[in-house]
Amino acid sequence: MTWKLTKSEIDNQSLLLDESLLSIGNGYLGIRGNFEEGYKSTFGSIRGTYINAFHDETEIQYGEKLHAFPHFQQKILNVIDAQTINIYIDEEQFSLFEGEVLHLERNMHMNAGYVERIVHWKSPKGKEVKIHFKRLISFTTKELFAMEVNIVPLSNIQLVQIVSVVDGNVSNFVDKNDPRVASGHAKRLHIVDVRKDENFSIVKNRTYATQLEVACVTRSRIDLDEYEYESKVTDNNVEETYFCKGNKPIHFTKYNVYTDTLRHGNGVIEEALFVQQQLTGTSFEDLLLQQKGYLDKFWSTADVKINGDSSLQEGIRFNLFQLLQSVGKDPVSNIAAKGLSGEGYEGHYFWDTEIYIFPVFVMTNPELAKNLLIQRYSILDSARARAKEMGHKKGALFPWRTITGPESSAFFPAGTAQYHISADIAYSYIQYYLVTQDDAFLMDNMAELLFETARLWIDTGHMKDGQFKIDSVTGPDEYTCIVNNNYYTNVMAKHNLLWAAKAYYLLKEKDSKVLSELRDRLQLTVLEVSEWIDAGEKMYLPYDEKHKINAQDDSFLQKDRWDLENTPKEKFPLLLNYHPLTLYRYQVCKQADTVLAHFLLEDEQDLETMNNSYNYYEQITTHDSSLSSCIFSVMASKLGDKAKAYEYFRNTARLDLENTHGNTKDGLHMANMGGTWLAIVYGFAGLRVKESGLSLAPSLPDHWESLEFQLQYQNRTINIQMERNTVTYSLVEGESLTISHKGEMIELVSGKLMKMAL
Amino acid sequence: MTWKLTKSEIDNQSLLLDESLLSIGNGYLGIRGNFEEGYKSTFGSIRGTYINAFHDETEIQYGEKLHAFPHFQQKILNVIDAQTINIYIDEEQFSLFEGEVLHLERNMHMNAGYVERIVHWKSPKGKEVKIHFKRLISFTTKELFAMEVNIVPLSNIQLVQIVSVVDGNVSNFVDKNDPRVASGHAKRLHIVDVRKDENFSIVKNRTYATQLEVACVTRSRIDLDEYEYESKVTDNNVEETYFCKGNKPIHFTKYNVYTDTLRHGNGVIEEALFVQQQLTGTSFEDLLLQQKGYLDKFWSTADVKINGDSSLQEGIRFNLFQLLQSVGKDPVSNIAAKGLSGEGYEGHYFWDTEIYIFPVFVMTNPELAKNLLIQRYSILDSARARAKEMGHKKGALFPWRTITGPESSAFFPAGTAQYHISADIAYSYIQYYLVTQDDAFLMDNMAELLFETARLWIDTGHMKDGQFKIDSVTGPDEYTCIVNNNYYTNVMAKHNLLWAAKAYYLLKEKDSKVLSELRDRLQLTVLEVSEWIDAGEKMYLPYDEKHKINAQDDSFLQKDRWDLENTPKEKFPLLLNYHPLTLYRYQVCKQADTVLAHFLLEDEQDLETMNNSYNYYEQITTHDSSLSSCIFSVMASKLGDKAKAYEYFRNTARLDLENTHGNTKDGLHMANMGGTWLAIVYGFAGLRVKESGLSLAPSLPDHWESLEFQLQYQNRTINIQMERNTVTYSLVEGESLTISHKGEMIELVSGKLMKMAL
Repeated sequence: MTWKLTKSEIDNQSLLLDESLLSIGNGYLGIRGNFEEGYKSTFGSIRGTYINAFHDETEIQYGEKLHAFPHFQQKILNVIDAQTINIYIDEEQFSLFEGEVLHLERNMHMNAGYVERIVHWKSPKGKEVKIHFKRLISFTTKELFAMEVNIVPLSNIQLVQIVSVVDGNVSNFVDKNDPRVASGHAKRLHIVDVRKDENFSIVKNRTYATQLEVACVTRSRIDLDEYEYESKVTDNNVEETYFCKGNKPIHFTKYNVYTDTLRHGNGVIEEALFVQQQLTGTSFEDLLLQQKGYLDKFWSTADVKINGDSSLQEGIRFNLFQLLQSVGKDPVSNIAAKGLSGEGYEGHYFWDTEIYIFPVFVMTNPELAKNLLIQRYSILDSARARAKEMGHKKGALFPWRTITGPESSAFFPAGTAQYHISADIAYSYIQYYLVTQDDAFLMDNMAELLFETARLWIDTGHMKDGQFKIDSVTGPDEYTCIVNNNYYTNVMAKHNLLWAAKAYYLLKEKDSKVLSELRDRLQLTVLEVSEWIDAGEKMYLPYDEKHKINAQDDSFLQKDRWDLENTPKEKFPLLLNYHPLTLYRYQVCKQADTVLAHFLLEDEQDLETMNNSYNYYEQITTHDSSLSSCIFSVMASKLGDKAKAYEYFRNTARLDLENTHGNTKDGLHMANMGGTWLAIVYGFAGLRVKESGLSLAPSLPDHWESLEFQLQYQNRTINIQMERNTVTYSLVEGESLTISHKGEMIELVSGKLMKMAL
Repeated sequence: MTWKLTKSEIDNQSLLLDESLLSIGNGYLGIRGNFEEGYKSTFGSIRGTYINAFHDETEIQYGEKLHAFPHFQQKILNVIDAQTINIYIDEEQFSLFEGEVLHLERNMHMNAGYVERIVHWKSPKGKEVKIHFKRLISFTTKELFAMEVNIVPLSNIQLVQIVSVVDGNVSNFVDKNDPRVASGHAKRLHIVDVRKDENFSIVKNRTYATQLEVACVTRSRIDLDEYEYESKVTDNNVEETYFCKGNKPIHFTKYNVYTDTLRHGNGVIEEALFVQQQLTGTSFEDLLLQQKGYLDKFWSTADVKINGDSSLQEGIRFNLFQLLQSVGKDPVSNIAAKGLSGEGYEGHYFWDTEIYIFPVFVMTNPELAKNLLIQRYSILDSARARAKEMGHKKGALFPWRTITGPESSAFFPAGTAQYHISADIAYSYIQYYLVTQDDAFLMDNMAELLFETARLWIDTGHMKDGQFKIDSVTGPDEYTCIVNNNYYTNVMAKHNLLWAAKAYYLLKEKDSKVLSELRDRLQLTVLEVSEWIDAGEKMYLPYDEKHKINAQDDSFLQKDRWDLENTPKEKFPLLLNYHPLTLYRYQVCKQADTVLAHFLLEDEQDLETMNNSYNYYEQITTHDSSLSSCIFSVMASKLGDKAKAYEYFRNTARLDLENTHGNTKDGLHMANMGGTWLAIVYGFAGLRVKESGLSLAPSLPDHWESLEFQLQYQNRTINIQMERNTVTYSLVEGESLTISHKGEMIELVSGKLMKMAL
């Protein structure tokens, strides 16, 4: 039963965790798994409703503000709350913290797209009732958050009151002492309209700085012949009360439609009313059917079947489901570090998208993957402006964290200094092209983006003694900041530079007119292209003769090694317990850095070097970042260490479900969720996509009986089924294709199973 | 007439500048040169009254707050304003921006210790009057700010009103966009008492966070047989009005006594009243005489006489006078970066004290110098706590900027990372000991401080391949931050370590009981002492074979050189026009770094290396810091380049007088003022104080006829007079002494002039 995630605890820690785990969403709208009726007053809760990219800007405060420090920070907002439904049983208020909970079950149905809560409750005065809540955010009508409540009286109950609220008085969650969540500016929305139409509760909010608007238009309904009804409009909310007499079952639904300026323009209320009209006559059952239809299609290409470990099966499905729930599906949305499940990292988009999440979608659902790239393309002008502001003559420097383009990082050593994000975005563009051969994309987006990022590297680095070097940047590992020649950055920049030149000649070959227009527009010279090739070919990649590894940067190996063995457990994650300078002073890694580079660009080094690097860095990596274990798993697979690959994989697969990083309450770790898939498909199955084509090198974990998944590749669907001793490839859809299996070229032909030895 | 600084402009820029230039102070209290009656409403002004070390704490805001980032920042406060005196001439308000200014002259008398303003004014209605303001802050009664106004009617005037105000409603100056001044928290004082006693106006303020109190108790007086008097007390201030009829000269005085919790305990008003009682019967003339007496004594040891350039003569005297006015003279005070002349750098104490200012006082007024060291000793516990907080097992890490001890730096790469401040403080302790042979100081303060700072270096650095290395610190040059093996830091740490060991054995020899007590208290082991020697002796000092220079740090010379030639003038200072990362990426220095190390510890390298370093770094140094030119001047003298030494000296001598850094309005550049003296005495006269004794290597600038100054050294006063071809040494006071003149040992004997060839 790994399609269903079940929870039933009601202690505060579990509830906070479950708010994230049981969050629902569709990439546009996301709602945390809060109780409709709220918690006990002594309990903490992060009650949240989020719209992807819907944000305000707040001034960043600095004790000492230096040139080109961003003035403003974007911030995803907790928008209008439509979750609230209070229930009174003969005037006793329903609450799981009063009376007696005879049964409680919360289920998230990952193949059906809804969450339910089933309660058998006995009130303090002894009245018994069964209440069944269901909620979903529609994958087919993105604005819709629908709720259903079924109430069945089990003892003699005279009156059931249902009080349904739409509340515009909302604010964000803050925690001053955790750098991973916001530290201020809780209240960023004010109410501009609140009223009750004939059928609808209407609330409209506006942000203070960006002047974006969000509306929630709600229709509630009760299926009962007789009831009384009252509504009340205050400054903040619309409250509807249904009085239901007689001891009968009650079926109540609440359809909340959210619209916002970014997608719906200025008439957000009118647009929401229009969507409500379209929904007229659509029952909750209908909505469930639509969800099922959408998810059947999704899982048909995305599912990963693990035979032999139901807990890991649950983990991978949960992770994929949550990725789907959070990934932006329109041109203004990307995927936030916490998706739409919480406010951690303030709804910002990081390199997590390109390196950890995009690969899942590009191989399972290329259209969703493309949308992520198009959103990046839409902020290319911001990236150009940022490069200028940072003192570069040309090029595009992508922001380390942003929503609509402006750099929102307030601590540049582990923010803006991570120049690699520009190469990471370029890398994902290249991967997309390799997987899809989408020439229109090459012409419309990819060439330009590669050119502008290549220009950045030319202006950032410099030729020294015949080698191209890049000074004063920060690599992925945030425990060592502002270094010279970070291996990861340099090798990714090399890839970026050489592919920019490649794209130039590809474009020349495919459509020289497009190239010529682009050259004119960008004032690009052929000299620049030869500079890219020169810099790329002469890129300096630090290598240490003594350890026969790639050094993380020029000075990394000169430092003392952090004594991890004698560091008490409670001192992890180190960033919460040591000043950055102390961390910088030692060989200690928050996460995969050189090891990640070896995964992404494995042809840059021989296997022995990668093996040495893996062994070296593994000993000094804390995995304090949730972006680390998955990469170590992939590389352990690559290097043939099956036990380790499995162990690291286990750390990723249930990271949120088991809250192993302790902060899942602030939202799910989206990058790690992608990483789970990477550990399976790039790790156990050994997938690589290069210019030479698609290759696999499968190796089934010893604990499993079989593993099955599908890949989308150049208009084909390929099924891969790994068993104990064999792997079976089959071409589900598309034309014949030659792929590499452990270095051996095999041809996949429609209707033919290719069974190969593992 | 170089004892008098004269100013007379009344445009806004000049007035803002003159507010700093004509500020008065005594190390305890400082008041900017604001007009008593204020300016035109369209003019900017920083109206300020400051008490050294009197501060509040404000929360530092961070966009991303990491571990051990300081929570609070200390901030010097603009305290109760007693400057205000408004004058009405037949009901027309006196103002230099109305009517006609027939004459205006503002003088600061550097040998007499007061500032005056002489005005001949014609009112809009044609009434003429002469007004002569004088103000002083007493060097003998530190709490006293005294003012005198003489009004002489020149046409028929019926009524002169004098309105004297003491105002508790004050706030600090803020500028969000300049990292060198405060960006917020203007209002940090609230009024807790405001009243009029029989004779006194009384205002008491309290800070919001630190709960420190400041009182101003004012007595005003008019010497006139007949006048009417009114007083008014509001929530904010006490206002006294004198109505003087008849066309007579008026003599008005206002004595303002300031007390504060840090010096006067809880009864600040009572203490101020007590001081006022002591002043009963003391006329303004008496006060002027006391000032003269104090300054005669000061100048008798501190004056530097330049014959041949009155503008530079004015410069050096102005600088020395302002240093005296700002230097703390009680145990809670040090000297702020801007002294008591403005709010720039928020009244914090930096390494400026030890490296740029302390040397002036130790050679001219050792008692004042000692006070600076004692204040540092008083915050040793804070430095120990900070070391712990930063993850060190032992030792003391002094804050980069502070008032009473806590680190107040909000940007650690150019703040906390400047670990060298601990070695700088140790260096000044050693210099003090060499100059004074003060064994009591060795026992009570010096040994402990050297031990604790030495411990810091052991815990910060590490042995690597037989060399002691120090990673991830920032040297003096803030255009390259967080580097490994900054030459300056390493060589200063070496000095610190070896002298800690030396102090240990000195103490053992002088008083082993004191040592043994100290060892017990600090849990110090002999093993530690041998570690200090080992680390000191094996200290790695980066040297570049190609250029035959000391490299600023491990990677500095690998970077591209900043193209200073093609950088437009308006782009300086670079820190206001480029992001730190851009600056870090190039060889470009804000200020002397390696060159400064060569000055402070010249025996660590041969002359050729120092010469090469000088030439190399000079080409890439912008001198954007006011701490740079003086050091280049000293080293140019050392290396025999008289022309350059003179040119750099000129840049320092009148930096504030000519506002060459453009920000003198925020306060005077105290370190540079000390630097002017360094450029003369350590530069032109070639003074060095080492274990081997005192040495000079004089060389008179070509433009000058003579240069004369005195030194205090081991209970002696030595006069040095440099002329075109000779230098004459004479022992003014104290026992005979052998010193080195250009390497030749000569004996100074009382009553005998030693004339030597230049």
